[in-house]
Amino acid sequence: MKNFIPIPFTDVELKDNFWSERLIINQKKTLTANYQHLKKQGRIDAWTWKKGQPNKPHIFWDSDVAKWIEAVSYHLANKRNRSLEMKVDHVVDIMANTQLKNGYLNSYFINVEPDRKWTNLRNEHELYCAGHLIEAAVAYYHATGKDKFLNVMRKYADLIHKLFGPKRNQKKGYPGHQEIELALVKLYRVTNDKKYLELSRFFLMQRGQDPHYFETEQKKFEKEYPGKFYMHPPLINRIYSQTHKPVVDQDEVVGHAVRAVYMYSGMTDVAIETNDKKLKNACKGLWENLTQKRMYITGGIGPTHHNEGFTFDYDLPNETAYAETCASIALANWAHRMFHLEPNSEYIDVLERVIYNGILSGLNLKGDRFFYSNRLAALPKEIEANPHGFNLERQPWFDVACCPTNIVRFLPSIPGFIYSKNKTSVSINLYIQSKVVVDLNGHSVTINQKNSQPWDDKCSIQVDNESRKDINLFLRVPYWSKKIKVKLNNKLKKLKVSKGYCSLTIPSNSKSKIDIDLGMDINLVDSNPNVRQNFGKQAIQRGPMIYCMEEIDNGTDLHKILINKKSLKAKKGLLNDYNYTFISGDAKKADKQGWSKKLYSNKNIKKFKNKKIKMIPYFLWANRKAGEMKVWFLKN
Amino acid sequence: MKNFIPIPFTDVELKDNFWSERLIINQKKTLTANYQHLKKQGRIDAWTWKKGQPNKPHIFWDSDVAKWIEAVSYHLANKRNRSLEMKVDHVVDIMANTQLKNGYLNSYFINVEPDRKWTNLRNEHELYCAGHLIEAAVAYYHATGKDKFLNVMRKYADLIHKLFGPKRNQKKGYPGHQEIELALVKLYRVTNDKKYLELSRFFLMQRGQDPHYFETEQKKFEKEYPGKFYMHPPLINRIYSQTHKPVVDQDEVVGHAVRAVYMYSGMTDVAIETNDKKLKNACKGLWENLTQKRMYITGGIGPTHHNEGFTFDYDLPNETAYAETCASIALANWAHRMFHLEPNSEYIDVLERVIYNGILSGLNLKGDRFFYSNRLAALPKEIEANPHGFNLERQPWFDVACCPTNIVRFLPSIPGFIYSKNKTSVSINLYIQSKVVVDLNGHSVTINQKNSQPWDDKCSIQVDNESRKDINLFLRVPYWSKKIKVKLNNKLKKLKVSKGYCSLTIPSNSKSKIDIDLGMDINLVDSNPNVRQNFGKQAIQRGPMIYCMEEIDNGTDLHKILINKKSLKAKKGLLNDYNYTFISGDAKKADKQGWSKKLYSNKNIKKFKNKKIKMIPYFLWANRKAGEMKVWFLKN
Repeated sequence: MKNFIPIPFTDVELKDNFWSERLIINQKKTLTANYQHLKKQGRIDAWTWKKGQPNKPHIFWDSDVAKWIEAVSYHLANKRNRSLEMKVDHVVDIMANTQLKNGYLNSYFINVEPDRKWTNLRNEHELYCAGHLIEAAVAYYHATGKDKFLNVMRKYADLIHKLFGPKRNQKKGYPGHQEIELALVKLYRVTNDKKYLELSRFFLMQRGQDPHYFETEQKKFEKEYPGKFYMHPPLINRIYSQTHKPVVDQDEVVGHAVRAVYMYSGMTDVAIETNDKKLKNACKGLWENLTQKRMYITGGIGPTHHNEGFTFDYDLPNETAYAETCASIALANWAHRMFHLEPNSEYIDVLERVIYNGILSGLNLKGDRFFYSNRLAALPKEIEANPHGFNLERQPWFDVACCPTNIVRFLPSIPGFIYSKNKTSVSINLYIQSKVVVDLNGHSVTINQKNSQPWDDKCSIQVDNESRKDINLFLRVPYWSKKIKVKLNNKLKKLKVSKGYCSLTIPSNSKSKIDIDLGMDINLVDSNPNVRQNFGKQAIQRGPMIYCMEEIDNGTDLHKILINKKSLKAKKGLLNDYNYTFISGDAKKADKQGWSKKLYSNKNIKKFKNKKIKMIPYFLWANRKAGEMKVWFLKN
Repeated sequence: MKNFIPIPFTDVELKDNFWSERLIINQKKTLTANYQHLKKQGRIDAWTWKKGQPNKPHIFWDSDVAKWIEAVSYHLANKRNRSLEMKVDHVVDIMANTQLKNGYLNSYFINVEPDRKWTNLRNEHELYCAGHLIEAAVAYYHATGKDKFLNVMRKYADLIHKLFGPKRNQKKGYPGHQEIELALVKLYRVTNDKKYLELSRFFLMQRGQDPHYFETEQKKFEKEYPGKFYMHPPLINRIYSQTHKPVVDQDEVVGHAVRAVYMYSGMTDVAIETNDKKLKNACKGLWENLTQKRMYITGGIGPTHHNEGFTFDYDLPNETAYAETCASIALANWAHRMFHLEPNSEYIDVLERVIYNGILSGLNLKGDRFFYSNRLAALPKEIEANPHGFNLERQPWFDVACCPTNIVRFLPSIPGFIYSKNKTSVSINLYIQSKVVVDLNGHSVTINQKNSQPWDDKCSIQVDNESRKDINLFLRVPYWSKKIKVKLNNKLKKLKVSKGYCSLTIPSNSKSKIDIDLGMDINLVDSNPNVRQNFGKQAIQRGPMIYCMEEIDNGTDLHKILINKKSLKAKKGLLNDYNYTFISGDAKKADKQGWSKKLYSNKNIKKFKNKKIKMIPYFLWANRKAGEMKVWFLKN
């Protein structure tokens, strides 16, 4: 299995399916609502803000607008929309007018504190904002072909390239919030200008070196700007910022989760482009640590609110899970890159896990409310008593609006994750109803995928190979599949599975029909016994979906429920007016009968009552009346 | 069973036993070390502090010295000590010299901010400090007969009585940190001056009335002292300060745990003295809520660090338990009062539970290190990752030194909890080796209790009844007793148990011998199923002692251990050089064999390996190498 490259979102046409329902029907509304929030909060007008006006720009505002532009770009590739495009063009014009002659572009440090540029890389998000703007410019260029924004950002990137680097008169710093590393590789790919790749590599390799840039910076800052806020003291440590070691020596995911995983994505991009073995090994080590020891079953990552990030191996508290929506998005993007560093289904398995669970839970069904943190168990009273993390219910917006803009940017980028290719092959990574025309050495291969994933396990694929050569079609065998069956032109194939993919040879100049039975079943999932929070418990999964119980269906005191596993059945139904598959079954629930008022006793016997239960996909929780919710249940 | 009154600590002679080992052998060292800490921190010299000197007094310092004096007083009753007594007399002289002419006495508001007396009752601890000083003065008077300190505090109490009250020109306030309410009842009892009882009642009854004193005070404070710190904003709410309702209407324990339970003690004292039925019912309702829904198995209370207090019913997290040592001490003192409000063994059961577990864990074996918060499960990495509560190990001292001085004051007060009496009866509440001479209507009854509780269940009691009347001896039947057996003069008695006590008639002018087999066994204890954190788990108890497993005996990953209950055996042994009883047995532990590197799987089967285990009394944990610790174990 040779290395693959992604097939970009612009080449993939999404068909009516689970995702298009969410992306196309809701997306326009959501993007417009997002714009209105950004406008209202002053973010859109930050570049033209003048002293004395309301809505003084904040150091991270540019990134929110950038993510919104990137979201619009992906959306436009699926469905043109003149009104949204005009809004973007308008913002691009403002930015172009605001950009300083030398290329500098940041609303806060142009309009609020013009004399303090680049003085606090650790906390003040200049390079982070630049990174998001670059990503947005590249996406907008791909989606529309317009290059004005791209040129603005090239000019800014050129300035950064001049300011930062190994030469004597250059700054040896790197971003406090990683992001520009991966953005610069995108800029390199679209411009083919190697200096952007080099700059990305510089930022990465400089990190964790001595003298420690942030510590030097802090001393200088506190001397030059006494009394000014540098950074929240508990967060001033090397672990938080992933600067405790050179990146190639890092093998544990630590610190702020979003920052960490954006960095790992950047490392993976640079490893792909430079074929740097050390960097590749570091990526693999970090991946292993994250996905084998520090990831929720939903793909949520970063369990604690203290650092919005990682704690220690196998520490996955459910009620207090922070699991920021942005961190799950970071993980999906990293997983996609890892697959292109080294083809293996385990990366796409994680991608799929986090998309359908940890990311999607960040958004409500209507597309207008957001979770910042994604608990795996909810108890309304607990949330009230311990004010860490966020509310029980999704919120329309946040002051720190990273998650809403990030999820709105992420979802329409999903078409870009479905297929990959190399010289002789196409891989189907995700079973998402769509059509793609792939250029294989000048010949086109058309793939038309029909299914109703994630709810059903039948998938039919038409492949029209116009090439004069046979090609390989790689089909991912999902980790949750009980027994995948593949028919090629109605003939059952004996499957050879390698690295989690089975391959079919599709003859030259042929039209083939592939029928796949994904072998979807209700799975009872255990955690590694090292996870103390889930020890003795099981979760319920069907296909890629993790299921949960909600109070509205099952009453309170969900912890008292023991599921009768054999009774579980998948059933189609409606949640509000949304078609989905729930799971129903029998259970027993501890009953207060047989227990006195006592809190502790060696005499009471626990009694149980039989009970019907209903489980819904985790991502759908809190779309009706929010209340108790639970994923992990004690074994019967 | 008629109401009892306590038999004071001064009448009880502690014999060599579990407690005397800790109280007499260690106590002198601990009290001297305490004094040195207080001296070093400037607390002893706070009353004579002058502007410009180091160690500027803090608003709560007087209370720490007060608790130390109270501790010395209890100690002196057991064992005279000239050096400690001289230290106290010296401090009393300083206070007497510092006291203002009108009676006012507070080191901070005399020396640091003399113009701001009584302006911030909510946060600034003036009444709290006064309360502790009164308690100390009463105890020192009982222990030594010296009345100088008592007179100083009467003068101060007289001033407070003049300033606070229902009259037009009097303040309608009450303490931010309750304490003076119960202290004033002690002062009333020793002086027989009813105004102190009335003032206590005023403070209690004023609480929760409208207009809300603290809210009025805050407005005034912020107007008069703009920029001055009033109180940490998240704690400015009615629940935190138990001012959400009149106290007679309160039926849920809420807010800061120590403050709450000190108040309940004051309510109980006033209910006893005034026979107020509404107050009595409120006490009973609050007791029921606390002990049936909000108390750890160790008697720890107040599960969260957010408010150092209560959350909601059945919320008892183990790893993050706050369970402040001071709160457990408050509970013990309240339990003792509740028994005298209404005789019933359930109060003494809680008293015993909290003494042997939640309080004693606050102190190390050597008596020189303290826990502020008392977790019920410890995982070193978790404590590092989530900096709430306190360190893994006991500390020599704290900046806020309430717990060290409180535990050092509490332990030597234990002799005062052992016996109670009424006109015709004596009750033996706690089986603690000791001798008491009780005056029953002018006739003396001598009780000599021999046992080696809490480790053994045999107890022998000599009763010398010199009275011309028969008397009743009430023996508590502990809640953990499997089958108590009582012999009177070698004759097995058929027991009538009422309100948790069995009664024996001891003839007039007789010497009787009572032999008790307390029926101590290893108990497997369940939590009420509503406690989600312990659902499906059991704890191990023997006699009053809750047992735990420690890493040093059982390795890491304690959560993977399933105990074979039938194998458990109690054995005598040494912990460091301390004689105690541990529990050994067999268990199985989940093994990584049979589990791949995967974090989640529906295919892996959990395998177990057999293992020997050792459990030690909870209070002894962290006396060797601190590491993992666990009380609740999943059922096998």
